[in-house]
This record gives sequence, structure tokens and C-alpha cells, in this order.
Amino acid sequence: MRVLGNDDVERLLPMRDCIEALEPMYADFASGRALLSPRVDNMAPTVHEGAYYAFKHMGGTWPAREVHALRINSDIVTHPVVAGKPRREKRPLAGGRWVGLVLLFSTRTGALLAMFPDGVMQRLRVGAANGIAMKRLARADCRRLALIGSGWQAGAQLMAALAVRDFEEVRVFSPRAASRDAFVAEARSRHPHVAIAPAASAEACVEGADAIMAATSSMVRVIDPAWLRPGMHLSCIKSQEVDGSVLDRCDRVFVHTAQQAKQLDNILPGTPNVTPEHHRGWWNEPGRSTSAYPDLGGLVSGAAPGRAGEREITCFVNNVGLGLQFAAAGALVLERAGAAGAGHELPDDWFSEDVHP
Amino acid sequence: MRVLGNDDVERLLPMRDCIEALEPMYADFASGRALLSPRVDNMAPTVHEGAYYAFKHMGGTWPAREVHALRINSDIVTHPVVAGKPRREKRPLAGGRWVGLVLLFSTRTGALLAMFPDGVMQRLRVGAANGIAMKRLARADCRRLALIGSGWQAGAQLMAALAVRDFEEVRVFSPRAASRDAFVAEARSRHPHVAIAPAASAEACVEGADAIMAATSSMVRVIDPAWLRPGMHLSCIKSQEVDGSVLDRCDRVFVHTAQQAKQLDNILPGTPNVTPEHHRGWWNEPGRSTSAYPDLGGLVSGAAPGRAGEREITCFVNNVGLGLQFAAAGALVLERAGAAGAGHELPDDWFSEDVHP
Repeated sequence: MRVLGNDDVERLLPMRDCIEALEPMYADFASGRALLSPRVDNMAPTVHEGAYYAFKHMGGTWPAREVHALRINSDIVTHPVVAGKPRREKRPLAGGRWVGLVLLFSTRTGALLAMFPDGVMQRLRVGAANGIAMKRLARADCRRLALIGSGWQAGAQLMAALAVRDFEEVRVFSPRAASRDAFVAEARSRHPHVAIAPAASAEACVEGADAIMAATSSMVRVIDPAWLRPGMHLSCIKSQEVDGSVLDRCDRVFVHTAQQAKQLDNILPGTPNVTPEHHRGWWNEPGRSTSAYPDLGGLVSGAAPGRAGEREITCFVNNVGLGLQFAAAGALVLERAGAAGAGHELPDDWFSEDVHP
Repeated sequence: MRVLGNDDVERLLPMRDCIEALEPMYADFASGRALLSPRVDNMAPTVHEGAYYAFKHMGGTWPAREVHALRINSDIVTHPVVAGKPRREKRPLAGGRWVGLVLLFSTRTGALLAMFPDGVMQRLRVGAANGIAMKRLARADCRRLALIGSGWQAGAQLMAALAVRDFEEVRVFSPRAASRDAFVAEARSRHPHVAIAPAASAEACVEGADAIMAATSSMVRVIDPAWLRPGMHLSCIKSQEVDGSVLDRCDRVFVHTAQQAKQLDNILPGTPNVTPEHHRGWWNEPGRSTSAYPDLGGLVSGAAPGRAGEREITCFVNNVGLGLQFAAAGALVLERAGAAGAGHELPDDWFSEDVHP
């Protein structure tokens, strides 16, 4: 059994390879050859004032790579009010650290093969999903990227965009100048051959862009329908970043997974981005149990056609994660970790037994 | 993070203490102060002919002990036909071993506290549940025990019975003489002050018994209603061991958990132990979503009254397990393991991270 660190995952899983590892999983998932274990949440009291304990897990079995992944989060969560708005914050109380873990099991032997923290892979798989969508939906000649957001997820979205298109120019906007400047400084060092610059406003950011990527934690729309131009590709990491008025101006909209298209945040009337326009194709149409939009599996498998012309506006909404992403990315990391002797190897007998119920 | 073995669990968790550890959990569960995470199964193809991969997990959060438990089974399952009957067999393909694991997390810090195999605790918690029921339902002066079954689970049932009542005589029946003799030999060495003997027939086993405990993997009834006498206590580790005709002769029937009283095996008409009698109190009554019988939480919390007189026939059916049992027993094992320095301590930083999604 191999214990890996976030640094191992980062080193062994470049974005380009993560995209390649995930693509065949989506095709298998679309055709019923991969099994999702949906997210389950337990939330319970903890001793800390104003906080609760949240245990979450999700998983997936991918027979093609003989792997089952279980991703676990064990968090102390608070909802502090910051600058007048409630936020959701995880408190690092495990020795000043957070607790998110991925466990990989073999479908050939049952054995626990590996454990590693989820953080680095979590953002890589989000980036990879949006990268796969961009690769298959955006115009081939995209050169200018507008990136809205400058946090942890935004970095992976940028990696993914640069992995699938030859962007020459990237403009980054987020409300706080210090945050976007710091992001741009780090992005420049990581991607020295691309012109990356901060933008002072969202409008300046998206001006002339071929693609707009949102990577925020916003609970309200961050992409304005007025920004849309023929031929653009839009990319979101959560459904709240767009609303019906944006989606209805797009020629093709794909979600990450149609089966679990609904998120509580935007199915209730009165929540910020549920507008009357939603009812023409958005996923809260009465009586509809799956998204009206096809999903990434359909796109990768070819069941749902992608861009049909240079002037179409395409959009990908990464509405909810899939535990199977950890199976696909995990299988590759594990293979490489074995070859490289990375991490710490522990005796397999510690994680198996000679009796069974 | 502490990695323990089955031997550590066995040493640190005597049946008597396991019973004591679980009792307050049932009271908390009955009053909504413990949170169950129900069982989830993923079953998928594996490379082995005639086999499938089965990934199962269940869990529970028990705030009183600040612990969340996740129990995982990762198995290669086959259904060989043995002596004309299909069986369900787990193949030990992880280096000749099986894979079942319990992970314990802290609801105070989120940290992964411990990992250990599930096998020993699995049978201890089944035994403890039936022991708690016997302690509260059986006559105080029980002296003769009939044990039907001689497998792994039967051993824990015997431990539990001897922990809660002063049995002087135990008779053991199972169809194969070699199996029951081997069981009796081991049971005698473990419980030298009790007269333990094999019985050549089920009837000889139950003759004069104050309590009948079934601990089998049978898919059909193993307790005959003709055996029932006033004052008896019946105990089952699965619902298939009894049927409606047995239950209807009991004055009080308790199940392990009423919320999940239904098991697929005995809710379908035509399955072996679904008889017309079931419809008077059994849990497959049309329109009923929970068991008609109270459960162990109700018994422990006092919400459901136990035995009311010396002549009542009482019955406990351990219909389905609870992930919370691993939280309760695990919290005690962990406390003792820490004091004893048991197992292998691994750096906490391997199982936590300095980034989070």
C-alpha cells in the first residue's frame, strides 16, 4: 500500500496527462462501463462554537483500469460573515491542516493500493474536465482567454486551457487587485511563454476574448450575457456562475454530468440565478429529472455533437463533480508512482485480513 | 494515525466492554443524537471468470464520542454451487487475504485517527447487539442456551450470551458434525467454566433451552415454531432465520434497526420465509415503510418496553447492521490503543494536507 503526498500527485500528474487519463473514463461512463458512487454527506455537531462536522464521500469503479476510488472529506465547517456576506469556510484543525483523502482499491484483488490527499487532484480533475470540454467545443484558433477568478481553482483552469489551445494572451480578473496580481505573478512563472496580465474590470478582461473561463466561488452570475460574441466558448466550474439568460444565448451547452445536474443552490425559486429564462432548457424544468443539456460523457463518446461552426457560442458548466475522476486520475498516478518508487510503501498485510464476515 | 490489526482489536475489545460501548450509542441513535450513513454498494465487472467486484461502505457519526466511522469492504465475489446450493463466497485475492477496513475520523479536528481491519470488530458488534437485546429481554434466570450455527459469527454470539447471562449449559447444533465438534472444542477452551456440548439434531439442541440463538448464513428458517416454550428468548443474526409463523408466536419482537428493516431477501412474495402470517406484524405489510416491530434503540432508550413477565416469549432479529456500531466500538478501541501504544503510528501529515478545495 502506497501513501503519496500532494507533491507526488502534482509531479506525477501534469494537466495534459490528467486530461488524457480522464477522457476514456467519460466515454466508458457514457456507455455504462463505469460505475459512479454518488456523494453522501454526514453533518453532525462538533464541540466548536458555530461550527459543524461534515463527512463527505464519493467514489467510482472504473473496470477498464481495474480501480475503485473513494474520496473522503472530513471537515470542521463554519459560516462566518465576511464583508457582509456569509461564507463557507473549512477550519484547518487537524494539526493546522485539512483532511481530504483518496483511497484507491483494486477491482482485481480487492486490495487497498494507495492513499493520498485529495487537494491537488481535486483541482486537477476540475481543470481537466473543463479542458476536455474546451478541447472539443472551443474554436481551434482561440488565441485570447479571459479568466474570471484568481483562486486555487483558477490556476488549474488556466493550466487546462493552455494544455488544449494555443492561447497567446490571458487576462485575469477578480475583484481584489492584490489577489489577481499575485495570481498573475505565479501564472507567469509557470507559463512563461504566454502573455498573462491582470484586468482592472470584468469588461476589460473579456474584451476581445475567444474564450471566457469562470473559476470562482460566487453564488451569483459572473458572466454577463452582454459579453457574448459569435464563436466564443464559455467555461464554468459551478452552475451559479451563469444563469438562464447566458445559457439561452449559447448554441450548445454541456454540463459535467446530466444525471446529477441539479444543485440545491439553484433549483429553488428565488435563488439568485433562477430566472424565467431557465425554463427554456435549464435543468429545473418541472418534471425533468435529468439535465436538458447533454453532458461531457455524451460529448466525449460522440453521442452529443459538439461545435458545428465558427460562429456558434458554446458553453460547458461543470455542475457537479464525479468520484470517477479520482479513479481515472488515480490509476495513472498509481502506475507512475510505482514506477518511480514515490511515496511511502506500507505492508499490504496492515490493510487486509485473514478472516472475513 | 494509528494502524491496528485484528489481534489488537480482539485484545482491546472484550465482548463485555463492546456491549457497554455500544449501549449508549443505541440510546443516542434512538433520540436522534447519532447520525447513520447507510450502506452503499458498488458492484462491477472484474477480470475473474464468474466473479464480480463489490465495494461496500457504511458509516456513522457519534458526536458523544467525537468520532465518525467508515467501514469499507472491497471484495471479489463469486457464487459457486456447493452441494447443489448457490453460495456467496468472497475470494481472498489480496495476497491470499480479504479486504475489509474501518477508518475512524475525529469530529473535533477532522483528522483520520485510525485504520484497522473490520473482521474481528464486525463479529464483535453483531454479538454485542444480540447481547444487549438478550440482556434486556431474556429472563434473568436463563441457564440453558441452544446455539444453532458453528461458524465465525456463532463464536461471538456465544461470547455475548455468556457476557449477559449466567448460562451453565450450552448445546451447539449445525448440520456438519465436524464443524460443530471443532466449534465446541474451541468454545470449551475459551469458556472453561461452562458445559458446552454438541447436539446431534436441532431438536436435541433446543430441548429444555431458555434461549435459542441462531447464528447461521441460512436463507431459510432455522428456528421451528414448535420449539417455542413460555419464557424463552430467541435471537437471530439475520431475518431469514425466522419467519412469520415464529414471530407471531412471540410476545415481543425487536429488530436491530426499524428504519432499515427490509432486506430484499424476504420482502418478495415467493421467497422462502414470506408466508401469509407475515402480514400480522412482519415488516412487509403494504404501505409500511418501517418495521412494525420496535428496534434496539427503542429498547435501550426505554421507548419500547421489554419483557413484561416470566412467561413471555421474546425475540430479537438483528436484521441489518449499523455503521454506527463501528463508531462506538472503534472509539473505545482507539482510546485503549492510545493508552497501550498498540499498532503502528504513522505521521498525521501523511493523511492531511495544507491545501483544500
